[in-house]
Amino acid sequence: MEHVEEGRASLYKSVVSNSSKEMSCYPDFPFPEDYPNFVPNSLFLEYLKLYSTKFNLLRCICFNTTVCSITQRPDFAVSGQWEVVTVSGGKQSSDVFDAVMVCTGFLTNPHLPLDSFPGIQTFKGQYFHSRQYKHPDIFKDKRVLVVGMGNSGTDIAVEASHLAKKVFLSTTGGAWVISRVFDSGYPWDMIFMTRFQNMFRNLLPTPIVSWLISNKMNSWFNHVNYGVAPEDRIQLREPVLNDELPGRIITGKVLIKPSIKEVKENSVVFNNTPEEEPIDVIVFATGYTFAFPFLDESIVKVEDGQASLYKYIFPAHLPKPTLAVIGLIKPLGSMVPTGETQARWVVQVLKGAITLPPPSVMMKEVNERKKNKHSGFGLCYCKALQTDYITYIDDLLTSLNAKPDLRAMLLTDPRLALSIFFGPCSPYHFRLTGPGKWEGARKAILTQWDRTVKVTKTRIVQESPSSFETFLKLFSFLALLVAVFFIFL
Amino acid sequence: MEHVEEGRASLYKSVVSNSSKEMSCYPDFPFPEDYPNFVPNSLFLEYLKLYSTKFNLLRCICFNTTVCSITQRPDFAVSGQWEVVTVSGGKQSSDVFDAVMVCTGFLTNPHLPLDSFPGIQTFKGQYFHSRQYKHPDIFKDKRVLVVGMGNSGTDIAVEASHLAKKVFLSTTGGAWVISRVFDSGYPWDMIFMTRFQNMFRNLLPTPIVSWLISNKMNSWFNHVNYGVAPEDRIQLREPVLNDELPGRIITGKVLIKPSIKEVKENSVVFNNTPEEEPIDVIVFATGYTFAFPFLDESIVKVEDGQASLYKYIFPAHLPKPTLAVIGLIKPLGSMVPTGETQARWVVQVLKGAITLPPPSVMMKEVNERKKNKHSGFGLCYCKALQTDYITYIDDLLTSLNAKPDLRAMLLTDPRLALSIFFGPCSPYHFRLTGPGKWEGARKAILTQWDRTVKVTKTRIVQESPSSFETFLKLFSFLALLVAVFFIFL
Repeated sequence: MEHVEEGRASLYKSVVSNSSKEMSCYPDFPFPEDYPNFVPNSLFLEYLKLYSTKFNLLRCICFNTTVCSITQRPDFAVSGQWEVVTVSGGKQSSDVFDAVMVCTGFLTNPHLPLDSFPGIQTFKGQYFHSRQYKHPDIFKDKRVLVVGMGNSGTDIAVEASHLAKKVFLSTTGGAWVISRVFDSGYPWDMIFMTRFQNMFRNLLPTPIVSWLISNKMNSWFNHVNYGVAPEDRIQLREPVLNDELPGRIITGKVLIKPSIKEVKENSVVFNNTPEEEPIDVIVFATGYTFAFPFLDESIVKVEDGQASLYKYIFPAHLPKPTLAVIGLIKPLGSMVPTGETQARWVVQVLKGAITLPPPSVMMKEVNERKKNKHSGFGLCYCKALQTDYITYIDDLLTSLNAKPDLRAMLLTDPRLALSIFFGPCSPYHFRLTGPGKWEGARKAILTQWDRTVKVTKTRIVQESPSSFETFLKLFSFLALLVAVFFIFL
Repeated sequence: MEHVEEGRASLYKSVVSNSSKEMSCYPDFPFPEDYPNFVPNSLFLEYLKLYSTKFNLLRCICFNTTVCSITQRPDFAVSGQWEVVTVSGGKQSSDVFDAVMVCTGFLTNPHLPLDSFPGIQTFKGQYFHSRQYKHPDIFKDKRVLVVGMGNSGTDIAVEASHLAKKVFLSTTGGAWVISRVFDSGYPWDMIFMTRFQNMFRNLLPTPIVSWLISNKMNSWFNHVNYGVAPEDRIQLREPVLNDELPGRIITGKVLIKPSIKEVKENSVVFNNTPEEEPIDVIVFATGYTFAFPFLDESIVKVEDGQASLYKYIFPAHLPKPTLAVIGLIKPLGSMVPTGETQARWVVQVLKGAITLPPPSVMMKEVNERKKNKHSGFGLCYCKALQTDYITYIDDLLTSLNAKPDLRAMLLTDPRLALSIFFGPCSPYHFRLTGPGKWEGARKAILTQWDRTVKVTKTRIVQESPSSFETFLKLFSFLALLVAVFFIFL
């Protein structure tokens, strides 16, 4: 983790998960009870180790092996087999596989469009892509400009602001900023990601959903007053998860700026602002692109930030569904259960238990998605790879025959049914039934809130008796009336 | 600021003001427009310099001078004069003054009750009082325990958590934690500190006010679930101002602990918890005591954390009111306008424009206050020196004949009157009229929100037209009905 490696994802030291532990675990393997609700990267690695130990996965994994190419075998139309050339320890080898899953993700190739920043070649300070960032020490007493207000850019700006002389965060499009500490301090995704809310949102026209969301977002802090409001309120970018940004803005430690007009030798000029700001370091948090250099374009072609994949997984045109792409999707939810459910579905396809439609039908679905026709209802997932978390997973679960039947459950197990509908859509939902069903799923769902609260409740305070509160509620209402009466007398 | 000096207040590098700039300026001298809403200590020093330049104060101040003793002159009963012995540059001198104002505050003498921590003498790690704290570097990769959850303790724990291996924050009584970023991101004190809200609060019985406050506090994060809830919901301690604490708790970077049971060689045992936690550094953020070593006890006696001062200012028993203590009070508001208004009132007393009641009456007021009889209405300011900000200043203003007459103003200047009643009780209110009236006060009040918003709005985003919003409001209501209809069908 200390070094940035070509072709591999890179982390900065302080990275913390954006989704809570009850919402981002493997569906049959909750995080240990003493893990915090939002897991720092080192603990996440521990969790992955625990998982691989539990399921004895290490014997299946070849580490330190680079995949050079994946090509169809000559008899692919019949066998569906792939020839995979790898290099390990300087030694190249070639193997034949019945199926391949590509899980390289979309965070390895830094996107650094230097052409968009006129004058950058004259800049005498230091500049680098956020991927190179590890630790804020380098910002000590410097004037820092972070370009791009995604999760990394915002994290870096906030971290830099503890040491730097001055920090600017430049954003063109703005974003909604969500705190991990959501309503009453519950993890944001456990409140936001429920089947009830999702259904409610998807029933409403998009402008209304956008308006409701913007009201909710602005109740923490007015995004217009803080200079970070999204320019486009309908075609939402991913929200930014950050607990500290508004506090850093209101204390003047981070200054929000519009897009860059020009970079000079030792300063930067922003659009719509006359002054020139002296800058020592520029961090380009301008995101990532993805590619499959080991695959021929005829198999998976990346265009406009997306690939022609059926259900975001299978190349639609191949005669045999033996190559699957996992995790090339941006649901507003955790990647771990998403990828796991994709993999579970793929296994059933590979086993022949699920039959894919003919290529023409799959191509049609892919093309429809590319057209980006928006239904006009619910949240708008208009950017490439964005999708509705619950709807997408439910679609896979339906195909897997693993979607819990809420109506039937309401009769047989009403407590569970209500928790599934109104409670957080935690990954355990996906393992209640179907192939790969986990016996512990029901219990995990019914105890998810206990685990969430327990880990922060490390000092016990006697709560006031609730009868007193009920009395208070009644009494305060009366007193309110009296007060109003007095005030407007 | 880099060194801790005996007998003087000490700051850590990251300290930021707890009250917003519009609420904590000198009443006739707003902060410069480009200062952030919550001012870091270095900018606050700049502001003090600007203030002293504007009013040409430096010529009146003798720096680097230690006051050794302040004693009554033999003819005090007639002259009211004081003999002040000072040391400057190693040279002692004695001067006679007609009046003395003592402005030493209550944050100079660290309170470190080591007896309350059994075993501390066996502890092999490092420990110190929060007053010694300057910079978090010392915590790198250490296991840190901060004792005491006041503003300093919480700040230090949060800062340490960015570098330390583990951070525990131990609190006996707990506290309400307020974010500077309050409703919709407005500064907390501009929302909380209005005459309207104050009047409303003071009309309600204390248990109801406490209950309303606890509801409000818990809407950000449930203080019981986060382990920080105050034990006593009625006799409130000062709230803690911190924007980051819940985010640090939910990511497991800060762990809340109850009080200490025992300190061992390399670890600490907490009450009601079986495990022993290994600890490398203990920071005692156990607060301060105050004293007046340069004054004889017969003049000002400090007992149980308070002194017998009429209106928190004048020793009640002296025959001549020529010694005043400024700033020995803990209003839930800014000290700057409080101290300034006290000083303004004292000047009128010294000039003879205001006559104090006879000592017996003043003594009675002081003794009443010491008894701490609570009216049963409004917030409970039960701890020593705590007082209701607006009520206290209004009392001084009334005595000064400087309290704006809202009823009359409602007819002559309704816009200002409404802003004064419903808007933040900013310091400019205190200079609208009376001796020391400031011509700019009205304008400063009417533009206070503009200044507040402008400084963070450093990127301008077009807001959606409000006609669309009005339409949306109507439409969303209808859609809501439809949605509810569909859901419960």
